[in-house]
Amino acid sequence: MKIALAQLNYHIGNFTTNLQKMKIRVNLAKDQHADLIIFSELAVCGYPPRDFLEFPDFIQQSEKVVKALAKLSNNIAIIVGAPTVNPQPEGKDLFNSAYFLFEGKVQHIAHKALLPTYDIFDEYRYFEPQTNFKVIEFKNERIALTVCEDIWNIGNENPLYTICPMDEMMDQQPTLCINISASPFDYTHAEERIKICKENVARYKLPMLYCNQVGAHTEVIFDGGSLVIDQNGHVVDEMPYFREAFAVYDTGILKADNKHRNNERPKDKMQLMHHALLLGIKDYFDKLGFKKAILGLSGGIDSALTLALAAEALGKDNVRSILMPSQFSSQHSVDDSVTLCHNLGSPYDLIGINQVYQTYLQLLHPQFEDTEFDVTEENLQARIRGVILMAISNKFGYIVLNTSNKSEAAVGYGTLYGDMCGGLSVIGDVYKMEVYELARYINRNGEIIPNNIIEKAPSAELRPNQKDSDSLPDYAILDQILFQYIERRQGPKAIIKMGFDEDLVKRVLRLVNINEYKRYQTAPMLRVSTKAFGMGRRMPIVAKYLG
Amino acid sequence: MKIALAQLNYHIGNFTTNLQKMKIRVNLAKDQHADLIIFSELAVCGYPPRDFLEFPDFIQQSEKVVKALAKLSNNIAIIVGAPTVNPQPEGKDLFNSAYFLFEGKVQHIAHKALLPTYDIFDEYRYFEPQTNFKVIEFKNERIALTVCEDIWNIGNENPLYTICPMDEMMDQQPTLCINISASPFDYTHAEERIKICKENVARYKLPMLYCNQVGAHTEVIFDGGSLVIDQNGHVVDEMPYFREAFAVYDTGILKADNKHRNNERPKDKMQLMHHALLLGIKDYFDKLGFKKAILGLSGGIDSALTLALAAEALGKDNVRSILMPSQFSSQHSVDDSVTLCHNLGSPYDLIGINQVYQTYLQLLHPQFEDTEFDVTEENLQARIRGVILMAISNKFGYIVLNTSNKSEAAVGYGTLYGDMCGGLSVIGDVYKMEVYELARYINRNGEIIPNNIIEKAPSAELRPNQKDSDSLPDYAILDQILFQYIERRQGPKAIIKMGFDEDLVKRVLRLVNINEYKRYQTAPMLRVSTKAFGMGRRMPIVAKYLG
Repeated sequence: MKIALAQLNYHIGNFTTNLQKMKIRVNLAKDQHADLIIFSELAVCGYPPRDFLEFPDFIQQSEKVVKALAKLSNNIAIIVGAPTVNPQPEGKDLFNSAYFLFEGKVQHIAHKALLPTYDIFDEYRYFEPQTNFKVIEFKNERIALTVCEDIWNIGNENPLYTICPMDEMMDQQPTLCINISASPFDYTHAEERIKICKENVARYKLPMLYCNQVGAHTEVIFDGGSLVIDQNGHVVDEMPYFREAFAVYDTGILKADNKHRNNERPKDKMQLMHHALLLGIKDYFDKLGFKKAILGLSGGIDSALTLALAAEALGKDNVRSILMPSQFSSQHSVDDSVTLCHNLGSPYDLIGINQVYQTYLQLLHPQFEDTEFDVTEENLQARIRGVILMAISNKFGYIVLNTSNKSEAAVGYGTLYGDMCGGLSVIGDVYKMEVYELARYINRNGEIIPNNIIEKAPSAELRPNQKDSDSLPDYAILDQILFQYIERRQGPKAIIKMGFDEDLVKRVLRLVNINEYKRYQTAPMLRVSTKAFGMGRRMPIVAKYLG
Repeated sequence: MKIALAQLNYHIGNFTTNLQKMKIRVNLAKDQHADLIIFSELAVCGYPPRDFLEFPDFIQQSEKVVKALAKLSNNIAIIVGAPTVNPQPEGKDLFNSAYFLFEGKVQHIAHKALLPTYDIFDEYRYFEPQTNFKVIEFKNERIALTVCEDIWNIGNENPLYTICPMDEMMDQQPTLCINISASPFDYTHAEERIKICKENVARYKLPMLYCNQVGAHTEVIFDGGSLVIDQNGHVVDEMPYFREAFAVYDTGILKADNKHRNNERPKDKMQLMHHALLLGIKDYFDKLGFKKAILGLSGGIDSALTLALAAEALGKDNVRSILMPSQFSSQHSVDDSVTLCHNLGSPYDLIGINQVYQTYLQLLHPQFEDTEFDVTEENLQARIRGVILMAISNKFGYIVLNTSNKSEAAVGYGTLYGDMCGGLSVIGDVYKMEVYELARYINRNGEIIPNNIIEKAPSAELRPNQKDSDSLPDYAILDQILFQYIERRQGPKAIIKMGFDEDLVKRVLRLVNINEYKRYQTAPMLRVSTKAFGMGRRMPIVAKYLG
């Protein structure tokens, strides 16, 4: 039997485009005499569709696409993910399903049993879990068909679920395991995914075809990396990361000896993050129908990295940098920014903000008389820059890129509606130390980001001789404390026990918690870590824990 | 037996204050010879604690409070909600539990079985559901103890869950039903709550004590309205809405004839919304430790209503209005605003923005040369106002109140970082037609909001002779379409079938969907309807459904 894997980039709610993409691959698979083609989880409507699932009209549109696909299934079977309506009156209204289409009809529907409801996932919000499981007979195979999370409940000491779908199917003697997924990227995920797939193969002694989606949906990025693993646990193929792919496999190879193949791809953290961010930027613009970006280029490392990434993702001519020095800006900030734009061949404008700044101060003089220069005047400069970026963006139809990093976002070191403005936060899930690493990675074949930007001490330049280190601990320390609190959910006692200064730990954790209100109003941040700010980290604003 | 109900306002993560509040009521109950005192769901840590539940340190602090409460239970039993750790390795790490404390010890723990995971609720994100149920014997009663949602799965045609906890307990012959809740307000909820409680009493022929919390936690408001219902379904007491309450009831009355009592409170929509918004504002400030608010007063109805509400919630001296006319503002806007401030006795500043506006235009002249006046220049004015509000807020430690209404938020009629700025959106869940109703309600005993503000045609005054009706349909029509789409999740076909113009419906639904990016960056909106923007309505930004 020949099986085609289609690792595609879908668009949520864009039923026409999704169907069109799948049609092309069905025809391609037919041309290559495939018996079966596999698309990913909720491919029909795009994943994650979120609360669109609550709209009956959305579900009906999805059902129409399934019918259209069924019509194509005359000489080929099709496995495709789509929501189905729960016919029972009790329980959630929908299932997250894998359709098995053949001979123009729906032959079988397997529902997802393990519904991730943690981090960015809300599946139990919409879906009822499957409780009975049936192997599909097709040609000379008995297929155990599962959806994403269904294969992830093995080998953990602390499993999230009380059942294991594959265990439930083993007495029906399946010969082949097929899993359709929409399993999002983080920089550890490709490794985790391959590990869990191999563990499944080892446990059930069954070859596995695993079909993931690729592409970014707002902040969530999918890396693809679909897998074909033989019954001995050797990787026959690992599809590319961060791009669409299509291939046809003969099931014969799944039972052959593939010991000497080595088809696993390198999993370098910086390389993965770099590609993930590029795809995240590109898909945000492509899928919203925008071409051009604008950003404030300060002379610091964060906006420099954001520009380098955006220029690579969108094309150097499609990113316009605005340099907006104030009286507190140093000459090297402007010079380094200009050098970077020259290195990239990217356009820039120089717009000094001093006169607007003075006009505001004069206007607010009656209110501010007898007060000292404080964070107000710092924020004022940042907000003037925000207003200028938004004005040019409005006038010419650009999207403003937010340039804050994860360390700043964590402790609230940024100005709401100022440098925190923008439609998409490119590096909001990248800690400051990782920002440096990424900058060096981008310079791996020669200087793109001027070394001076990488080497100078970070400063917001909002008052004379300001340095980040005036108000924040060393980023090397800060990032470690943040990682323990955010990614690892460690409390103050545990972090102090690791050897960090008690006052510092308490101060940092407090800053993270009391700045929730700022993050609430920040643009979506491209997710590259196991715990990003945004939809995957849901915190009360009004609270008093460690605050 | 005497039972005390304590309907309290907790603070998420503020274990010390929550314990202190409960201690006072335990002592009060002891003074009044109560045998049992009941606190609400997750009272110990505050509800909803959201992802703080993922921090072991947070759970440990909660457990300490439970221990401290147990120590107080020597002469009185205590029912109180707190998270408990799931001892099984499989499943979620926690339960959402009701502790039964007596004689210094934990006598029983009942876990919540029905875990709301829809709208603003994420309980299956954290909690494993209860699967076995045990009645508690105490004195001469057999108590069926449940948590919130557990009693809501009856009488529906389309129940969300497959089990019903009270059904499971009936063969243990309970004599009394006690439910601890954290059941959030919307303007239909008090009626729903009393209905569901009566349905439970009717079905099980058991008297019921229902203890809700009161108070606001960021956008979510709890109205209290705790209930005591006798075995015949008559309401013995409905506790007040929107304030703390404490009372002791003799179980004798639960078996008596209360037919002629009428203790149900009036449920007028405007009165409820009004009180809810006041509590929402007050608790946002109180629990964050702020006293003073600032807002931009435009002369329109939205900011007028916001000011009237804030002045009532925080005190007239604690709300400072900033009038910021531009060259496009009409004199009546300033006059009406001044009248309103005089009516309230509330301070205001007049800060014209024209000079700053001209300075920006001059600065951007090289970029904007040869372009026409468009939405850019409109947004620029709104953003200058945002910058001024934020500057005064930063300088004096005020919180900026956002004044956008739900109709505007829905269709994106507002400027990001301009009039959409602020820490809390007061009327972001109030449709424009309801804004008028509320304004008239506030004027019920005499003119507070000048009638001229209520009667004039709404205008953003960002270009000459602008009216909202230039770019939006009549609010009377718009609000109905929005309600069908947002609250009722109707699709375009269904709404058109109701008799609305096809092009208009398609345009409105498209506007709602493509403006998700703006709402994503808006302040939390006090939730008063059954479907508010924010945490209860989770939509993709990058999507193409009805867009």
